[in-house]
Amino acid sequence: MKNLKPLLCVADIDQLAERLYPICRSITGEGVRETLTILSEYLDLSISEIPSGKAVFDWTVPQEWVVRDAWVKDPEGRKIIDFQQHNLHLVNYSAPAHGQFSLEELDQHLNSIPEHPDWIPYRTSYYKSDWGFCLTHKQRSALKEGVYEVFVDTQFKDGSLSLAEYFVQGKSQSEIVIYSHCCHPSLANDNLSGLICCTALAQVLSKQQPNFSYRIIFGPGTIGSISWLAENQAHLKNITMGLVPVLLGDSGDFRYKKSRHGEALIDRAVERVLHDRGLNCRLEDFSPYGYEERQFNSPGINIPTGRLSRSAHGQYAEYHSSADNLDFISANQILESITVCEDIVHVLDRNVRLLNLFPHGEPQLGKRGLYGDKGGSKVGNWEMAMLWVLNLADGEHDLLAMADRSKLSFDEIYSAAMALEDAGVVKRLSSRG
Amino acid sequence: MKNLKPLLCVADIDQLAERLYPICRSITGEGVRETLTILSEYLDLSISEIPSGKAVFDWTVPQEWVVRDAWVKDPEGRKIIDFQQHNLHLVNYSAPAHGQFSLEELDQHLNSIPEHPDWIPYRTSYYKSDWGFCLTHKQRSALKEGVYEVFVDTQFKDGSLSLAEYFVQGKSQSEIVIYSHCCHPSLANDNLSGLICCTALAQVLSKQQPNFSYRIIFGPGTIGSISWLAENQAHLKNITMGLVPVLLGDSGDFRYKKSRHGEALIDRAVERVLHDRGLNCRLEDFSPYGYEERQFNSPGINIPTGRLSRSAHGQYAEYHSSADNLDFISANQILESITVCEDIVHVLDRNVRLLNLFPHGEPQLGKRGLYGDKGGSKVGNWEMAMLWVLNLADGEHDLLAMADRSKLSFDEIYSAAMALEDAGVVKRLSSRG
Amino acid sequence: MKNLKPLLCVADIDQLAERLYPICRSITGEGVRETLTILSEYLDLSISEIPSGKAVFDWTVPQEWVVRDAWVKDPEGRKIIDFQQHNLHLVNYSAPAHGQFSLEELDQHLNSIPEHPDWIPYRTSYYKSDWGFCLTHKQRSALKEGVYEVFVDTQFKDGSLSLAEYFVQGKSQSEIVIYSHCCHPSLANDNLSGLICCTALAQVLSKQQPNFSYRIIFGPGTIGSISWLAENQAHLKNITMGLVPVLLGDSGDFRYKKSRHGEALIDRAVERVLHDRGLNCRLEDFSPYGYEERQFNSPGINIPTGRLSRSAHGQYAEYHSSADNLDFISANQILESITVCEDIVHVLDRNVRLLNLFPHGEPQLGKRGLYGDKGGSKVGNWEMAMLWVLNLADGEHDLLAMADRSKLSFDEIYSAAMALEDAGVVKRLSSRG
Repeated sequence: MKNLKPLLCVADIDQLAERLYPICRSITGEGVRETLTILSEYLDLSISEIPSGKAVFDWTVPQEWVVRDAWVKDPEGRKIIDFQQHNLHLVNYSAPAHGQFSLEELDQHLNSIPEHPDWIPYRTSYYKSDWGFCLTHKQRSALKEGVYEVFVDTQFKDGSLSLAEYFVQGKSQSEIVIYSHCCHPSLANDNLSGLICCTALAQVLSKQQPNFSYRIIFGPGTIGSISWLAENQAHLKNITMGLVPVLLGDSGDFRYKKSRHGEALIDRAVERVLHDRGLNCRLEDFSPYGYEERQFNSPGINIPTGRLSRSAHGQYAEYHSSADNLDFISANQILESITVCEDIVHVLDRNVRLLNLFPHGEPQLGKRGLYGDKGGSKVGNWEMAMLWVLNLADGEHDLLAMADRSKLSFDEIYSAAMALEDAGVVKRLSSRG
Repeated sequence: MKNLKPLLCVADIDQLAERLYPICRSITGEGVRETLTILSEYLDLSISEIPSGKAVFDWTVPQEWVVRDAWVKDPEGRKIIDFQQHNLHLVNYSAPAHGQFSLEELDQHLNSIPEHPDWIPYRTSYYKSDWGFCLTHKQRSALKEGVYEVFVDTQFKDGSLSLAEYFVQGKSQSEIVIYSHCCHPSLANDNLSGLICCTALAQVLSKQQPNFSYRIIFGPGTIGSISWLAENQAHLKNITMGLVPVLLGDSGDFRYKKSRHGEALIDRAVERVLHDRGLNCRLEDFSPYGYEERQFNSPGINIPTGRLSRSAHGQYAEYHSSADNLDFISANQILESITVCEDIVHVLDRNVRLLNLFPHGEPQLGKRGLYGDKGGSKVGNWEMAMLWVLNLADGEHDLLAMADRSKLSFDEIYSAAMALEDAGVVKRLSSRG
Repeated sequence: MKNLKPLLCVADIDQLAERLYPICRSITGEGVRETLTILSEYLDLSISEIPSGKAVFDWTVPQEWVVRDAWVKDPEGRKIIDFQQHNLHLVNYSAPAHGQFSLEELDQHLNSIPEHPDWIPYRTSYYKSDWGFCLTHKQRSALKEGVYEVFVDTQFKDGSLSLAEYFVQGKSQSEIVIYSHCCHPSLANDNLSGLICCTALAQVLSKQQPNFSYRIIFGPGTIGSISWLAENQAHLKNITMGLVPVLLGDSGDFRYKKSRHGEALIDRAVERVLHDRGLNCRLEDFSPYGYEERQFNSPGINIPTGRLSRSAHGQYAEYHSSADNLDFISANQILESITVCEDIVHVLDRNVRLLNLFPHGEPQLGKRGLYGDKGGSKVGNWEMAMLWVLNLADGEHDLLAMADRSKLSFDEIYSAAMALEDAGVVKRLSSRG
């Protein structure tokens, strides 16, 4: 077994983010592969390649996109837009082009953000063959009439789409899928933050034997998750829920977007963790736009899948622009996001159902040393948690339901439940998958 | 086929309202028949007559009421209350009477409205044999002591109760009943407005082949709908819902009173239309008092039936008085009410369920020309509507449910659904009746 | 049949409270027995004795506690704490002790309330063998260094736990259990108030033949209800719900704590009574802490049981202290509490389901003399109640459901229902147990 790098502290995270940031990723090709190779230094990833042209449900795996160079020269022959300077300058998946263009012709291929004149936008043209450049609005506004030379030295070639996964075998076959997209070029929050969180979470899980099995997947957006689902159809029956952790490095409050089901176990667990942490957070109903939760929640797949993020896509100014850079994220915020993900896993794994073995009236807790012995004083959370667990340990309620009804935290309920189990007062049933 | 009059514009509506207003209607008799004859100029009505004395459920069809004349003369012999001047002066269904009465005796047969001293109230005595007059409170207060002569030249005779209906055969046998009462004398909002709306709606439906079948009924209140139900018992199993459009000519906001069921398809459709129009409106829970929805929602009939009105019965000062006259309603308000009724029919008829034929992940909309092709910009309502339809096209959700969940309008959802059907991505299931 | 004392007026209640107040009750022993003997002057109680040492579910019936004397003498030999002065001075269930103690040693056995320096707290040590005294904080603060003599002349001996019950045979076997605890020494609101209310309620029930059967139980807290349940296991299947009326003598608003079920018939009945009386009151969700509702709502017993009180345990300053004395309660407040309990019984007993015998449309109420006969005036609550009863008399809705939906009072609905039953329009179905 190879020696894996740790991902535990601010320095580890900063180092990984800095290495990943400059790579020009796309939905297929070397950028993704280079990214997955770096992540393999931290995690024993299984990488699979789906060949170009393969049908995956209603889609076809695209060709790989190769970029060698891309620039625009002004009428004086000066290189004024240069892919080598910033990979956002070239519209992602641009087709090859070379020629002379008037300013008017060129302008139809340019993209900028008038509201943020110093930022370069991020644009793609995955499903329509075209080429284009992105630049700051300041630079665009200064372009003068004249003839510009455009050179886009790209190529589409048969190859494959890369998917990486890390599997943690739990006690149960029931499996939770965690998917974070790896197809964006130099954008830090979207989604180096998600990749780092999921890598760190996988490291933590690799050291445990959890109750559920966990499958952490790194792949491109849309076509990536569709390909993975198409390639793993026979396996989907084992997957009981999913989580999409993305955009987790900025300073915004946490947001959780519920699964299409809306009250699935993943929804209940994430909401409980955010509630118990006392954080400001925002719970959003499912909608079919977003990241890979779109595919997992589609009616034919129907795996209840939520999305955890901080500032959501399209909800912050820096989204999909050069301002979503390493300064926009912080390792401490990513570390906090990792602990939230860990808490979610802990809650899912500890969420058992119990059977009260002394269900007729209350069992006598005092003689088992579990209860305060002096009548008349106020009862504390510890006693309340035990009483709630005993009252709801009817095989129907799981610990999350007990926490909800008692208005106590999951940890308080869990501690009481374990003490009662140790005392032989309740018996653990298999958790609800 | 006879040449029918149109009912399309302000002039058409004003003309019809002016012809109907002066007629002295009651629950039976010539006034109703004259009214239905006029409506027959606009619609090929089927008219049926239920003979007096016939048992209809717990009730008996009453005799016809004939009014020839009715007046009160003051001690000086001057005719001071005269049915010929205003048909509200005589309590509807008054028994014959002739004699001399002291002011005290007479006063027990008089009705007026102290709060509105210039208005004549509308009163009936359908189910107790009595006679009475209605007058302004100003006139009543001025009556002096002395002997008054009363003459009520009315007659009860065996005849029949008149019901008119217009049936539109749809593709489905599942039928929607629409009932508006025609038994009130010179009251404009209550209910010439409803008669005109339903007539116009029937004209529109007659030019379509809708999905549902529609049965528009004009009949008296209470005994009319009870008679219709009793006479059509074998047919009731086809009727899946009902609507009572009444009091639709005044300037008030729309009000919808839900069916006893509360979440029946008729309720969902009307609420959606009022919501999508962005109108101020008021949704009211069912109660067993009101118009014909009382009978349709009775436990033994149990046809979910809502009521659409503007200002509700008893909720406006002019209600059941001579102030509910042609000045109180306006043709433009009736026209708006007609368009709301048309929208309800459109929503009901378009509310299909769909099956996503590419349910595993999202189908690729771009290759079918249905989706924007440039990544990075914000997604619009059109794309969101398609994504929602695809996500919920599982055969369980109808388009109304999709509109509710997506917070988009029914029209947006419907347009997207049709585009996806045209593209072969979804398949229409039979709508839920 | 012996001559029973009445419990009808302020004087009756004051007299009973004054007799019960000084008795030193505990979970077992002569104090409880003396209390039940006094209550037997008002009610033909059946008293049973469960012997010490008997296993009752997870518990064991404890020995009886005998107190002969208990005091503390100061260094000068003056008796400064004396059980004979106030029975709260001795920690209830204190073990015997006699010896010399330094102030520091003594202080570990003392209890007082710093926030209320003039009150003596009430403390127990039922399930841990220890001794202790309670005193005012003012007195405790004034204690000087020196050697104190402690004398606790108590004894534990085999005996029995006393339970009293009064049973009212109703028309139905379905039984409602009412439990009020009798184990607290000189505390007035907690729970002489509950004992008096339940005694008065039982007197009222004894003069009726109600529909449900009622079993009123007086017993100690926790071990008392557990013992009763253990001894009556074969009988529990007849018990369909329960009520715990306690702490009903103070001036606070009524509080109702719902059963674990939350929407059981007992919950619906109590909420309706409090609502219809227009009282300020507080509805609380079930929690597993409190009085005997804890045991009845345990998962293995699962008898939906609510708790009616005024100020709840732990929610008023005087709770479990010498300030919960006869001045803290008033007979008028207890009388009001009794009438609330009576109303609850009345609602439970009158809450039938009905079948409309004329369910097709409305039956004609006018010909049965049940309805106003002059059209045009506003409809009143009486007519509305009849219409609601007719509309919901489908065998599914009980009268409580009709009151909820109609927003009318239970009495209005009940009166209308009885009038309709008398008129032969509706038929009574057996009530839902």
